[in-house]
Parts: sequence; C-alpha cells; structure tokens
Amino acid sequence: MIAHSFQGAVFGPAQRMHGATYVVDLELRREALDADGIVVDIGLATQVLRETLAVLNFQNLDEMPEFKGRNTTTEFLARVIFDHIAVRIAAGALGAQALPTAQSAGLRQMKVTLHESHVAWASYEGPLPV
Amino acid sequence: MIAHSFQGAVFGPAQRMHGATYVVDLELRREALDADGIVVDIGLATQVLRETLAVLNFQNLDEMPEFKGRNTTTEFLARVIFDHIAVRIAAGALGAQALPTAQSAGLRQMKVTLHESHVAWASYEGPLPV
Amino acid sequence: MIAHSFQGAVFGPAQRMHGATYVVDLELRREALDADGIVVDIGLATQVLRETLAVLNFQNLDEMPEFKGRNTTTEFLARVIFDHIAVRIAAGALGAQALPTAQSAGLRQMKVTLHESHVAWASYEGPLPV
Amino acid sequence: MIAHSFQGAVFGPAQRMHGATYVVDLELRREALDADGIVVDIGLATQVLRETLAVLNFQNLDEMPEFKGRNTTTEFLARVIFDHIAVRIAAGALGAQALPTAQSAGLRQMKVTLHESHVAWASYEGPLPV
Amino acid sequence: MIAHSFQGAVFGPAQRMHGATYVVDLELRREALDADGIVVDIGLATQVLRETLAVLNFQNLDEMPEFKGRNTTTEFLARVIFDHIAVRIAAGALGAQALPTAQSAGLRQMKVTLHESHVAWASYEGPLPV
Amino acid sequence: MIAHSFQGAVFGPAQRMHGATYVVDLELRREALDADGIVVDIGLATQVLRETLAVLNFQNLDEMPEFKGRNTTTEFLARVIFDHIAVRIAAGALGAQALPTAQSAGLRQMKVTLHESHVAWASYEGPLPV
Repeated sequence: MIAHSFQGAVFGPAQRMHGATYVVDLELRREALDADGIVVDIGLATQVLRETLAVLNFQNLDEMPEFKGRNTTTEFLARVIFDHIAVRIAAGALGAQALPTAQSAGLRQMKVTLHESHVAWASYEGPLPV
Repeated sequence: MIAHSFQGAVFGPAQRMHGATYVVDLELRREALDADGIVVDIGLATQVLRETLAVLNFQNLDEMPEFKGRNTTTEFLARVIFDHIAVRIAAGALGAQALPTAQSAGLRQMKVTLHESHVAWASYEGPLPV
Repeated sequence: MIAHSFQGAVFGPAQRMHGATYVVDLELRREALDADGIVVDIGLATQVLRETLAVLNFQNLDEMPEFKGRNTTTEFLARVIFDHIAVRIAAGALGAQALPTAQSAGLRQMKVTLHESHVAWASYEGPLPV
Repeated sequence: MIAHSFQGAVFGPAQRMHGATYVVDLELRREALDADGIVVDIGLATQVLRETLAVLNFQNLDEMPEFKGRNTTTEFLARVIFDHIAVRIAAGALGAQALPTAQSAGLRQMKVTLHESHVAWASYEGPLPV
Repeated sequence: MIAHSFQGAVFGPAQRMHGATYVVDLELRREALDADGIVVDIGLATQVLRETLAVLNFQNLDEMPEFKGRNTTTEFLARVIFDHIAVRIAAGALGAQALPTAQSAGLRQMKVTLHESHVAWASYEGPLPV
Repeated sequence: MIAHSFQGAVFGPAQRMHGATYVVDLELRREALDADGIVVDIGLATQVLRETLAVLNFQNLDEMPEFKGRNTTTEFLARVIFDHIAVRIAAGALGAQALPTAQSAGLRQMKVTLHESHVAWASYEGPLPV
C-alpha cells in the first residue's frame, strides 16, 4: 500500500499524489523438480517476498532516494522487485537446491506480477542470472 | 487510487503517508422489480457511482477539507460514498422508478463495499431514506 | 448461455438480440445442521440446480412461451430460478431432512445469484415456503 | 489444509480419508465506527484468526479428540471457528473498543466463511454474545 | 454480450441461437519501458479496446456480414479482436512510443483473452507486425 | 479433494497427514483453429479431465501404489495429470482433429495448473508428444 505521484502529461490526474494497493504474485520455474519433489520451498519464497515488499509497504515512494527522478509505475516496480529477489536467490535465500546454475538443475526463470486492481496489472519476467 | 495517512497508534506503519486502490461495489435492493423488469437502470447507477468516485480518485485525502481531522479508513469511506449516492438517488438520479418511498415500490436498501485487496474489504449498508 | 432481447428505451442497445453467460450460485440457510452435520446434500443440490438451468441453457429466451411479453433480465431470471428450485425442495428433491417446516428444522431461506460478468450480478432471496 | 473422513451414506466417496484446503474469511459488524474510525483493529483480527486456524491446520481431524463422533463438514467447522473467535473477542483479544456490549457500541455480529473451492463454501453467522 | 449460433455436430445444443458475456483482457509486452516508464498509455489502450468491442457488443453475430459462414467461437473472436487492435496500434492509436519496430523499442507482443465464464476462456497471442 | 503426507524436513507441519482441494485448469494450444473453428471440443476435454481427476479424488494418496516413495506435491501432481491426459490425447480421446502431429495441425502444447488456494498454485507445461 504505497503513495506516489508521476511526472509526465501522459499520466493525467495521476500526476497528483495518489496511491495504490498491489497484490504481488511470484512465479518460479525450473525444468525438473528438486530432490524433495518441489519447485521451491514455498515457506522460504513467501518470506523472501514479504521481506522485499516490507521495504516498500506503507511508503511514499516519492521520498525514497533510490526512486529519485523515476516514475514508480506498476511495471517499473515489477522490475525492482524482480531484481531484489533475484539477488536474494543468488545469495542462497531459497536454499541450495534453488540456486540457478548453468546446468539444468535449479531455478531458471522468474515472473513478478503486481495486480493494482481487479482489471489492471503488470509483470516482469526473465531468466534468473546464473 | 488515493493517498492518505492515519492518526492513532493502532494504525502502526499506516500512520505514514501511503495509498490504496479501492474497487467499489454498489448493491441496491427492492421488494419487487419495476415496470421494465429491473431493479435499477444499471447505466445510470454506474454513472452515479463513477461521478461519486471521481471526487476521490487520484487525491491525497489528507488535503481534502471535508476529511480534516478524520481517519479516512476503508469503512469510513464506505459510509461517505453511501451518503453521497443516497442523496443522488433521492434527487432522482436513478430515475423516477428508483425513488425510495414509504410504499413498497422503489429502492429500499443499499450496500457499498470497498475492496482494498483480494483479502480486505469493508462495507456500509442501510435503508435508503424515504 | 442464453440469447434474448429487451423491450423498453431504458435498455438502449440491449433492445437488440444479444446474449449472456450466467454463472449461478445457490445459497441455502437453516438454523441448525441436520443429523449428518450438513446444511444440505451438496450432490443433490447441484443436481437440482443443473436440471433447473438445463431448461434455459442454450436457448433464445424470446422464443420460450413462458417468458412471452416479459423482459428476461438477470434479476427476473433470478426469481424464475428461485421459484423452480423452491418447488423442487418442497417436493423432496433435496431429501427429507431439507424439507422446510414451520418448526426450526429444515431449510429456511434461499438465495439465487446470477453473475453476468465479473462486475454485474443480480440475486433474489427469500424464505422457503413451508 | 486438513485431512478427514465422513460417516454416512450421504457422503458417498467422501467417506474415505480425503482432504481440503479452506480459505477462511472473517466478517465483523458494528453499528458505528470506534473512536479511531475503524470497525476493528485488522492486525489483531488477523492474528486471532491465524491462531484459531493454527490449531486445525495440517491436521487429520479424525484424530482430534474434540471432534470424536462428529462429521467435520465445512459448515460444522464454520461454527467451530465462530465459537473459538467469539470467546477470544469476549476475552478482549480484539481490544476494549471491540467488546460486544448490550449498548450499541462494540462488535455486534460475526460471520465466518470457509471456501473449500472456487464454487463451494459454507458460513456461520450470528450475534456476538454480550 | 453477444448472440450467435454454431454450425457443426460438435457443438451440440450450441447449434441453437444462444449467447455469451465475454470479459476481454488485453496484454501488451515490450522489452524495455518507454521514456515515461510505462509499457503503454493504459488510458489509450482501454479506449482502443472499448472501441474494438463496441462493434461486437449487443449484436447477433450471425447477422454480421464479416462473419458469414464462420463459427464465431470464443477462440475465433480472440483472433478477430487481436487483428483489429494490431491495425490500430500500427496506425499509432497507442502513441508513437508504442509503435512496433524492427528494433527492440516499442510493443512487441500482444495477447487477447476472452473469458466466457469463471471456468472457460480462450486467447490468441502473437508478435505485433513491424 | 485428497489427503496425503510428505517426507522431508523442508515440509514442516505438512509432514503430518493433511489434505487439499485442487481446482485444476487445463490449457491446450495450437497454431491454427480446426475445421470447426475451435481449438478443441471443450465437451470432450472436460470429460477427459474429469476422468483423469476421478482417479485421484477423495483418495489418500499415501496409499496409492503408483505414488509409493514419492512426495505428491502440487507440482508433482501437475505432471502426473499432464502425462495422463497426453496419453489420452494421443489415443484420440479429444478427436481426430486434436491429434498432435509433426505438421502444424493439431494440438501442440498443453499446460496443467493446480490451484490449491487463492494464493498458491503450481503448473506443468510442455509440448504434446507427436
């Protein structure tokens, strides 16, 4: 649940300070299941997602230094969250079996979707860096 | 899509400037259908709902004089929207057949629900004043 | 999935032949659970609902004699379905334990909701005749 | 996410050991908002709901002594959860402003809904004891 | 909300005149955000989608010359809508920054989904012609 | 609606006997519609999906010989269902026009998704063997 404003005539009334609730989905893909028969430890994945969102939740994004001069649109935020989680995965936050590798084992692909209402959403997807 | 902040320790981090997307449902009830076989002209009802929400959309509610000193919680806003629409109905904005009357004809009951995410919502419901 | 057209200026372009998909929910209420610990046998209830809808499904409602001269609006159809099912319940189609009676046992209240899209729906609710 | 089996021919194949995921909604009603402009502290309400569900989650309900000889149907469980939460509310778990009283202040009504799939659900609702 | 009938034994009762409500989702993809930090101007995209659907809404598709001799199935209509919107995009209806080009800038991929109920849907997706 | 338990510390309380409701979506893709203007006969597809799920429904998966020594996780079951249906398609259960072939005609790709709640799901997708 964040507040922000946008710069640019294309945004019309959204140039004013306003806000949004984002419901965020995280999707992880791999070619074969790990030794436990799972794609990922859903408990760890939920924790990493929560920790990533906690930095943004209940904030006025206009005042966060890392977003200075940027329009924090839904699609922009999808990429921000993707990059944060990719770093955590590479650091082992989802466990050793989830580590992306050049071989086929491990997580290979990730998608982050931000639903801003029942009709509008944006997502960013791409390979996990190995 | 509004921005606001709350006063009171109970709100924790929501005391900071943040925001929300509300998806708003309007429900109207009557005892018998009108002469056209409908509860209400859904085109007019949609227009009245849109006009009511347009006053709030893309606003920082903390800066609106009518909300000074109030916590613009989801449940509070449900009542605000209910009252606005009730006035419009009484003024005939949904047509003559929708006018609440002491007799059984006309709209009798209304419910306004604000969904702030896929899990949290609040509503206000009550009789339409005749 | 039905086709129909409406009579009356209030319907605008819906005066032309058009159609709709209805997703129909059936809700049954009683004060206390029956001897098996249930409100109703959900298998029987589903069957009665399916049989009721089968009469309407894939029809042009304008050509059905029982709807002659009526606007088969969503709210009108909710009542039609309510009445059909109420008759079936009274005839024992949901089993002896579901029979509405003057005493507190048995089903007491029913609600039929027709969802015509993700935003528009209508329902009819009322007591089950004893 | 629970496992259980049912006794009674009416349950057909559900007489075998099987399971269900329940998504549980809690709805609280009062006549007027409290001094903070809310129905209830949603943080406390979420915590009480989680603690109540934690007792049931990942259990084989057939092995829980309190359910011996009972069919733990969805509608039965809705009542069980309602009663647990009502006791917690009366004990002050939702704060002093939420206490049901004979006067109009405080929470007055509660509804617990268990969704067992996208089409089937059951709920129990009633007044909160004062 | 359209009416139509189908030719072919595979359609069973859907060979009769019937109808459907379609909820239509439009998804646009590009490799990098434009200068404003967006995938597309959602206001323009909504307008182009509305204008495209307005041609079909409240129509008996059996009577539209362009569909003569075709089964206007959900999957067929997804393609029809895709093609209409692709032409509009190429004509600049979503703005200069959205124009698909041989270079990586601009919209690259589109998906049109028609939901005909809570369980059935069809979509067409493909590259946007450059 | 199945019961099962998991082996492995990663599963925490899910190592106990518990259960789940799965809502299963089946998605089929081809490059061009068949002679009737459809991707697949949705009646046949629904029947094949139902028959496949009937083998699993209301079962304790721990007791099914084919799953001995396996964790019947959501993602594992998605693959099981995918493989069952792929065999049925190859055997002609969806009709001759649906048969995957080396040429572009016929079904080419399938995706099976198991929703275990409103927030958690898993899917398996891949080409249909020709």
